[in-house]
Amino acid sequence: MADHHHPLPPLTLVLGGARSGKSTYAESLLTDVAQPVYLATARAGDGEMVDRIRLHRERRGAAWTTIEEPLDLVGTLSRHAHPDKAILVDCLTLWLSNLMLENADIGQEIDRLAQALPGLKGPVLFVANEVGLGIVPDNAMARAFRDHAGRLNQSLAARCQRVVFVAAGLPLLLKDSR
Amino acid sequence: MADHHHPLPPLTLVLGGARSGKSTYAESLLTDVAQPVYLATARAGDGEMVDRIRLHRERRGAAWTTIEEPLDLVGTLSRHAHPDKAILVDCLTLWLSNLMLENADIGQEIDRLAQALPGLKGPVLFVANEVGLGIVPDNAMARAFRDHAGRLNQSLAARCQRVVFVAAGLPLLLKDSR
Amino acid sequence: MADHHHPLPPLTLVLGGARSGKSTYAESLLTDVAQPVYLATARAGDGEMVDRIRLHRERRGAAWTTIEEPLDLVGTLSRHAHPDKAILVDCLTLWLSNLMLENADIGQEIDRLAQALPGLKGPVLFVANEVGLGIVPDNAMARAFRDHAGRLNQSLAARCQRVVFVAAGLPLLLKDSR
Repeated sequence: MADHHHPLPPLTLVLGGARSGKSTYAESLLTDVAQPVYLATARAGDGEMVDRIRLHRERRGAAWTTIEEPLDLVGTLSRHAHPDKAILVDCLTLWLSNLMLENADIGQEIDRLAQALPGLKGPVLFVANEVGLGIVPDNAMARAFRDHAGRLNQSLAARCQRVVFVAAGLPLLLKDSR
Repeated sequence: MADHHHPLPPLTLVLGGARSGKSTYAESLLTDVAQPVYLATARAGDGEMVDRIRLHRERRGAAWTTIEEPLDLVGTLSRHAHPDKAILVDCLTLWLSNLMLENADIGQEIDRLAQALPGLKGPVLFVANEVGLGIVPDNAMARAFRDHAGRLNQSLAARCQRVVFVAAGLPLLLKDSR
Repeated sequence: MADHHHPLPPLTLVLGGARSGKSTYAESLLTDVAQPVYLATARAGDGEMVDRIRLHRERRGAAWTTIEEPLDLVGTLSRHAHPDKAILVDCLTLWLSNLMLENADIGQEIDRLAQALPGLKGPVLFVANEVGLGIVPDNAMARAFRDHAGRLNQSLAARCQRVVFVAAGLPLLLKDSR
């Protein structure tokens, strides 16, 4: 409930459930950043997601630049991270979902992201879904997704200086190691 | 873990999962209220819910008044809110479910409730389920419900002075803006 | 975020979602215990679980003793609890699942465990899943499991001196009543 806004640490993770307000909260952390960048991991072909990207764009306003990249998160972050910018990745869980659809080696992709994080040349905020707090899903794909998402979140949380859990739009600080 | 009990702010939101102890915790906040009112949003026709209402009634004791209203939450709160009483709404998520079964305009109902809150003439405590922390549901109705529930919780949390998350019967203070 | 490690209270509950890092966190609390005991509630016949037990074993190292007991948790704890040891029960939710498969009287089993806890002769840490924060499950068995798991977690949380919620590997202290 303190003012977590200033200054941005190198790496921030904002965790939360569906419609928890996590993206809006993450955006609020970039209010005073001169060059905020929105890195959307949604695929352009997904109608609902296109609507959401448009709504996000309108809500965020003119200062924001938008990049759309469903798969090559490491390359995109490496190219765009810069000390004068701040990149909001929305969201990690959708990126994971895209990778699974491509039959990628998820463990390897999580490791690649983890290894790239310390070398990024500017602040990055990651938004991710917490998906492991319901009943065990019936189908094996959903269980695998849940396992991967949990491991991805743990990997990121261990490497981010600040981790915030958002519920009903309210932030709860889980880690602040600056 | 501090004593959050006294005095009651105008508006309180108690969030939690299924069988998290959120209703019992919310009731405990009204222990010292002279005229506690239990506003049950369950429909009387629902057998399991009738049992739960009866159990609630026995647990709460004789000081409590019970009102049952599955749909017109705004009207009921407006009529009954009073400085000498405190109303416990159990629960918002069931009210939302009832509205969806009636094909109500959910966005409009959430807005109506939000607009009515500042004018209520006595303290109200809302209990609500957090339902967005599992895997994306298979069916579209469940996804819509989850989205509406998340938006409803965010709307309430923004307007309540105190928001508490309950897990395993234990309260975690998310907001206290008095 | 403080150092919750020393000394161990008589009873600890570590709650979290699937792949939240709750077991690894619970193990970290026993790093300085001379005789740590891992009480696995998984059934040996469950292939995936056997793999997990093996991985746990390798991660934990040589100081640990492992006991496997899918059903008689109360008897096993009563026999093994000792002031010089610390027992990690991983996990309560799997134990509950095993009991349901045996058509046990779950309410009675939860009560038996609750009654046995004050008499245990050494520290015990319980790991449990929070499963009630998703959408209401379609099938009745899953709903019953969710209700039982919620009641079990509430019962344990009320009796443990320390309760920690783990998300993305990060601990959040819910209770510390020493």
